[in-house]
Amino acid sequence: MLQENDTEMPGPAGVPQRKMTYFVPKSDNSNEQVRVPNVIALVGLPARGKTYISHKLCRYLNWIGIKTKAFNVGEYRRKACNLEEEGENEFFSPNNARGQKIRDEVAQLAINDMGKYLDNKEGEVAILDATNTTRDRRKLLMEFCKNLMHDPPFRVFFVESVCDDPDIINSNITEVKINSPDYKGIMSQEEAKEDFLKRIENYRMQYEPLDEDYDEELSYIKVINAGKSFYVHNVNGHVQSRVVYFLMNIHLLPRSIYLSRHGESEYNCIGRLGGDSPLSANGLLYAGKLREYFEAEDLDDFRVWSSQKIRAAQTASHLKDLAGHTEFWKCLDEIDAGICEGLTYEDFEARYPKQFAERDKDKYHYRYPSGESYEDLVARLEPVIMELERQSNVLVISHQAVLRCILAYFTNKNRDDLPYLKVPLHTTIKLTPKAYSCEVELFPFPIKAADTYREKPDQKQ
Amino acid sequence: MLQENDTEMPGPAGVPQRKMTYFVPKSDNSNEQVRVPNVIALVGLPARGKTYISHKLCRYLNWIGIKTKAFNVGEYRRKACNLEEEGENEFFSPNNARGQKIRDEVAQLAINDMGKYLDNKEGEVAILDATNTTRDRRKLLMEFCKNLMHDPPFRVFFVESVCDDPDIINSNITEVKINSPDYKGIMSQEEAKEDFLKRIENYRMQYEPLDEDYDEELSYIKVINAGKSFYVHNVNGHVQSRVVYFLMNIHLLPRSIYLSRHGESEYNCIGRLGGDSPLSANGLLYAGKLREYFEAEDLDDFRVWSSQKIRAAQTASHLKDLAGHTEFWKCLDEIDAGICEGLTYEDFEARYPKQFAERDKDKYHYRYPSGESYEDLVARLEPVIMELERQSNVLVISHQAVLRCILAYFTNKNRDDLPYLKVPLHTTIKLTPKAYSCEVELFPFPIKAADTYREKPDQKQ
Repeated sequence: MLQENDTEMPGPAGVPQRKMTYFVPKSDNSNEQVRVPNVIALVGLPARGKTYISHKLCRYLNWIGIKTKAFNVGEYRRKACNLEEEGENEFFSPNNARGQKIRDEVAQLAINDMGKYLDNKEGEVAILDATNTTRDRRKLLMEFCKNLMHDPPFRVFFVESVCDDPDIINSNITEVKINSPDYKGIMSQEEAKEDFLKRIENYRMQYEPLDEDYDEELSYIKVINAGKSFYVHNVNGHVQSRVVYFLMNIHLLPRSIYLSRHGESEYNCIGRLGGDSPLSANGLLYAGKLREYFEAEDLDDFRVWSSQKIRAAQTASHLKDLAGHTEFWKCLDEIDAGICEGLTYEDFEARYPKQFAERDKDKYHYRYPSGESYEDLVARLEPVIMELERQSNVLVISHQAVLRCILAYFTNKNRDDLPYLKVPLHTTIKLTPKAYSCEVELFPFPIKAADTYREKPDQKQ
Repeated sequence: MLQENDTEMPGPAGVPQRKMTYFVPKSDNSNEQVRVPNVIALVGLPARGKTYISHKLCRYLNWIGIKTKAFNVGEYRRKACNLEEEGENEFFSPNNARGQKIRDEVAQLAINDMGKYLDNKEGEVAILDATNTTRDRRKLLMEFCKNLMHDPPFRVFFVESVCDDPDIINSNITEVKINSPDYKGIMSQEEAKEDFLKRIENYRMQYEPLDEDYDEELSYIKVINAGKSFYVHNVNGHVQSRVVYFLMNIHLLPRSIYLSRHGESEYNCIGRLGGDSPLSANGLLYAGKLREYFEAEDLDDFRVWSSQKIRAAQTASHLKDLAGHTEFWKCLDEIDAGICEGLTYEDFEARYPKQFAERDKDKYHYRYPSGESYEDLVARLEPVIMELERQSNVLVISHQAVLRCILAYFTNKNRDDLPYLKVPLHTTIKLTPKAYSCEVELFPFPIKAADTYREKPDQKQ
């Protein structure tokens, strides 16, 4: 939990410089504390968005630093048998003994893998993406998780998606299910849809929703009609509390999120880090073109969020009357480079060679002395992500490191890749969330700008 | 939204210094944007914790910068008439026409005052602390809020507290109600309790809880048995989303929160701001005594949260084996004094006289150049407050400015007083939340320490 600090820290004005050798705590997520393993078990009929929820939760929890893996029982089933041979929905009939047996076996396989993953401390949270529609199945799961062979036993939180709105179910079937590996290339879309509806009926026969009285002892959330209502019971601990808050903020309405760095700044032109310089002539040109771009986009309910740095606010000011709201968030300010603010990369390397090398070794966790790390950035950007999930069309005008963190969230990039994502100047990135992914479009504007990208050094050297 | 910046900013190393005159955005909360006024209307029988929820919400929303006022209909009633004359619970009988009339009138008075408060933009959120137990009453309220005489009309969110756990109701009556101004000094505790139970029965006769079907169009949360379960429907906008998240994290279990600054640091001894210096000899002595104090407290489920500064982590290290968890939060680090880090107050005044004077004028909003304001601190401490609400016994080891923000939250201090709260070195502050307030105990340890307090300058000079 504590590491020795032998940084060459410059003393503040008037204080003699010295080498520090005190113990300083490492960043939050490195705390080697016993964390309680959590199982998040989906519950619901097919086409209720369970896999959608599972994907989104997995991405969010990993991004905030809680290592999470999803176990999708459908994928286990597809590996174990080929539906084509079986006769599709027949397989899912409660009267098909062989189908039932295989389904029980693959569910158990997924649960066992999940148990190993948590027992081996590979991660803190496992998401079980399965229907879990019967009380018996949930009871088996609870018994597995509470078994003393796990040290410590797993905490279980059920996420049930209940939906009786035919439009939502229909759009889910059309958008996702008929393109699923169960059907693609095997039958026509119409046949697939019909087969799938029969599959739902097979599950419905046995479906026992979570019940306020019967399931009094369980911890769970019911997500009703894709977030119109929620019933939340017995929330236990930090992870479950985050999961509930997240699920209550996401929505399915179509919209896009736009990311743009400020126009080129005077500091960009001379290769200096950080600071608070204004736009260069080319930067101003970009701000004008950005305005034209959003005039053409002609968005409803359009908001602009800018950092509080001059170069970002100047860029945002060109869009002021296009946006319903313009907000300035301090937490969108660029990474604080601490003692390296105002230096060029060359200055940095020459003055603090040890620091410079350390940064290249692990850029995500590296914290500038008296400044921030990418990991720190992610922590301060969490409220931005949560609020972006709630919003419709938003343009975020910010900075290279900050936008890398936001982009990594939406495109599900890991911590090694995050600090090297390409977010060039004078380029607008348009993100459009889809069911299981996020569409990314880059619009580079033909206006000259400094290149502020530094390649990942070759680790083999 | 934009202000001119004429700060004497020093340029970074190697860049010629110059006076900046660009427009920079002011901090988040100064955005003069049209915010939608929100009414939060409590619903529930007497003794369901409505006033408790109202107090807590009001404190929280004000602290995060959303100006909020509670309108308590009970207080209006007590001003309008004297229960003693009327014969106590008789007054609340649905059959008491005069009582009913007065109750309708005082409710209308409170609603009118609330309307004026929001229409005049005195605040953004009004909390209506009343029973609102009938559909008619809620319909009247909706009609009032949606009336086009308000520009813009008010958004309404109902917070219903439902409780059938006799222990919770009983403890609420015993702790709060029999000491209420309706009874205190008028009748014995036993009589008061009996009278109060009859009053509840009078309300129960007419009680129409919020209903999943009938109230489909409303936005609301049902808090069931003091937070065991929740039903949430139609959450609309940022304020309502914050309210829901907050209500889902608060709890009623007894516990204490302890605040302590790190032991005296080397910088404290020489009067310098910020930095990352280790403990002085006296500071180490304090860390040892702090350990003895918590050995004597002998707490269950005790956690220590420390900042990531060396002086705080050193202090926390003495408690390591007493605490179930020790966590190091970067957001508990001291206010970033930017260009003033490492200076004494005298240096600061001599080098940046204009900045120094500005800070004295409005200390809460003043932001150190390249650093932070108290307002910035509150924004970064919000997750700490939310997590503190969830926890049982926690000791927070942090710094003067940070602990002022946390103390202001628990003791409901305003923004003018917050930056001048006394949080001396070598003193442990014990906070014990009570129904409508928070008990504050100071334990100064007899170990010499520098005095880092600077009085609020006399504004009249």
